[in-house]
Amino acid sequence: MPRLVMKFGGTSVANLDRIKRVAKRIGVEVARGYEVIVIVSAMSGKTNELVGWVQETSPLFDAREFDAIVSSGENVTAGLMALTLQEMDIPARSWQGWQVPVQTTSAHSSARIEAIPTDNLDAKFAEGMKVAVVAGFQGVSDEGRITTLGRGGSDTTAVAFAAAFDAERCDIYTDVDGVYTTDPRITDKARKLDRIAFEEMLELASLGAKVLQTRSVELAMRYKVKLRVLSSFDEQTDTSGTLVCDEEDIMESNVVAGVAYSRDEAKMTLLAVADRPGIAAAIFGPLSEAGVNVDMIIQNISEEGRTDMTFSLPTDQVLRATEAVDALKTSGNVNFEKLETDAEVAKVSVVGIGMRSHAGVASKMFAALSAEGVNIKVISTSEIKISVLVDRKYMELAVQALHDAFELEKEG
Amino acid sequence: MPRLVMKFGGTSVANLDRIKRVAKRIGVEVARGYEVIVIVSAMSGKTNELVGWVQETSPLFDAREFDAIVSSGENVTAGLMALTLQEMDIPARSWQGWQVPVQTTSAHSSARIEAIPTDNLDAKFAEGMKVAVVAGFQGVSDEGRITTLGRGGSDTTAVAFAAAFDAERCDIYTDVDGVYTTDPRITDKARKLDRIAFEEMLELASLGAKVLQTRSVELAMRYKVKLRVLSSFDEQTDTSGTLVCDEEDIMESNVVAGVAYSRDEAKMTLLAVADRPGIAAAIFGPLSEAGVNVDMIIQNISEEGRTDMTFSLPTDQVLRATEAVDALKTSGNVNFEKLETDAEVAKVSVVGIGMRSHAGVASKMFAALSAEGVNIKVISTSEIKISVLVDRKYMELAVQALHDAFELEKEG
Repeated sequence: MPRLVMKFGGTSVANLDRIKRVAKRIGVEVARGYEVIVIVSAMSGKTNELVGWVQETSPLFDAREFDAIVSSGENVTAGLMALTLQEMDIPARSWQGWQVPVQTTSAHSSARIEAIPTDNLDAKFAEGMKVAVVAGFQGVSDEGRITTLGRGGSDTTAVAFAAAFDAERCDIYTDVDGVYTTDPRITDKARKLDRIAFEEMLELASLGAKVLQTRSVELAMRYKVKLRVLSSFDEQTDTSGTLVCDEEDIMESNVVAGVAYSRDEAKMTLLAVADRPGIAAAIFGPLSEAGVNVDMIIQNISEEGRTDMTFSLPTDQVLRATEAVDALKTSGNVNFEKLETDAEVAKVSVVGIGMRSHAGVASKMFAALSAEGVNIKVISTSEIKISVLVDRKYMELAVQALHDAFELEKEG
Repeated sequence: MPRLVMKFGGTSVANLDRIKRVAKRIGVEVARGYEVIVIVSAMSGKTNELVGWVQETSPLFDAREFDAIVSSGENVTAGLMALTLQEMDIPARSWQGWQVPVQTTSAHSSARIEAIPTDNLDAKFAEGMKVAVVAGFQGVSDEGRITTLGRGGSDTTAVAFAAAFDAERCDIYTDVDGVYTTDPRITDKARKLDRIAFEEMLELASLGAKVLQTRSVELAMRYKVKLRVLSSFDEQTDTSGTLVCDEEDIMESNVVAGVAYSRDEAKMTLLAVADRPGIAAAIFGPLSEAGVNVDMIIQNISEEGRTDMTFSLPTDQVLRATEAVDALKTSGNVNFEKLETDAEVAKVSVVGIGMRSHAGVASKMFAALSAEGVNIKVISTSEIKISVLVDRKYMELAVQALHDAFELEKEG
């Protein structure tokens, strides 16, 4: 029998009524002849409640206990979903991570799935089970302790099951009805995409589009799992939502697929750094050790053995980064004149696999921003993406200008 | 190192402050040199919330899913307790039932513990763990599914761990400060007992004293586990609470240890039953199959091949019992004239191992009730207990009269 993975996030299973609605949707797929693996999150709010208790009890908590506590929310939803399906006469049962088992590394609270043996579920499907309801976000380590995969980890659980069980597709039901050319809250010209390539989705996800966890997209790309993002609140047809797939499966597309943004960025510049081989490592090694996620890095042309080094980072890491940089100066490992910080910037990016074969995307982007008077502070590019840092107050304007310039409101 | 089992009920761990208070109490025992196994219930209210969701979702629920859902409450408390102890620099970790593992039968929602292998906990104690915080009430079946032991099952978990790990004592912390000669809400002469024999506690527990789950007392008696019942809200000394122990460990005691009662009893009488061999089985077999828990049974002297058959049962099972009895008549298997039901009775019992060697307890009991004008409707006795059914309106009066008659306010 063909298999399907369906994943439902916290708002989709927030209460018993919503669980019932979701169960009907699952019933439709069972009636179509699928054996279904359902991945569920905790009822919305539950995980936050549990996390709150942990933090209040122990600010520097033991991550193993954190995982044991926080994973309980998904277990409750899995059981309730199985019961709801049973009430509809659909043979279903719940599975906790350790029962499958979902084997992970021991990196508690950010564990990675290492293997999902299929024997246990296969045996139950062979006995007539139609739906396996699996608690998302969790697994079990070699030591037999409960692990969790980090926030949004249920997406990754879903893709990993789709890969392990060779599912026809992995449907991610969420509170939006697909992937958009940009955030509809910023421009009402934003258009839902029918299809998007893995590479594009990966860039969008890591650039701040919060539809899918980045890791789940990586995993889907590696194992060629067709991912569909769709709303659990709308009536669904076969073409609902957005299909995330191989670029070969996309017939035509715009050069640029979408515009992403990230609001809370900061920019730091070390002025007049004494330039020498290994200076970048001497700066960014300690920053990384201090837990700072440096994103863009720019080094200006060196003059008289001095250079300016600029990098971007999330706003909430500025304090940590400043301390690390001060320590560098004190220790004498890095010699520079001054540290300048601008915590009021945002990152705006255009993404599209068409950029590989089309020249002029960058110049069109810069022209569009310039026409609106938006000054570009830092530029960073990859094969399928161009990102710029701009003053935060211009962020919405920049997104709107780029959406217009690349005519994203029109189908490709 | 000597080992101690400490069990904390739902009100003792109702919130983070109470968990902290309980952790300090555990710390005292660790400082005394014990390796401690702590058994925790769910935070009070949590289990009811989960049970409510299950019942709303599926009135005739799959008990396997019920167990998977409801057991999550204990897991949360276990993790929070471990974190709280760690904050006090006490090496502690949480254990869910399947991690120990607590091996049980597959009778979901009323499973029995079959074995508790000690290897996993022993290994961690050897590595320096001082406190194992175990989620009570739950275990795992041979099929690898989560089971629960029924309401109050955490008491049984505690005693089973005390037996398996050869603990010096099993301390049951609860919201009362021990076992009383009778319910202090009925007479302020009720006196806390320092010691009580297993057999007496077993009768009191099954007669309605809600301090301990009956099964936990059975288990403690079989494995000679010293049980102590004490309050988690008071300061404790070595002689706090009530010790439930072998009768050899009780130096002196009253003939009667306590007076128990059960308010919601009913009495049913089948009048003029055609008497024949096997008639009792023909009546009580079907009642048992209908899920009726028949308690006392009395058969009057048979006249002319006819007899009256009286039995008692919980009030809320009267409807079920009536249907079963009607079916008996319809089927022709049992021939009787009339069914009389009195749903307004209560059971009052005196319990004491001293009754074995003292005559006259029954006559003293009947005289005391008679002196207060309380009519006795049914009598039932065992070696260490005498129970009577009386009109419910006389229940409190009967308890007070018996407490006075046997001078239970005085130490034995």
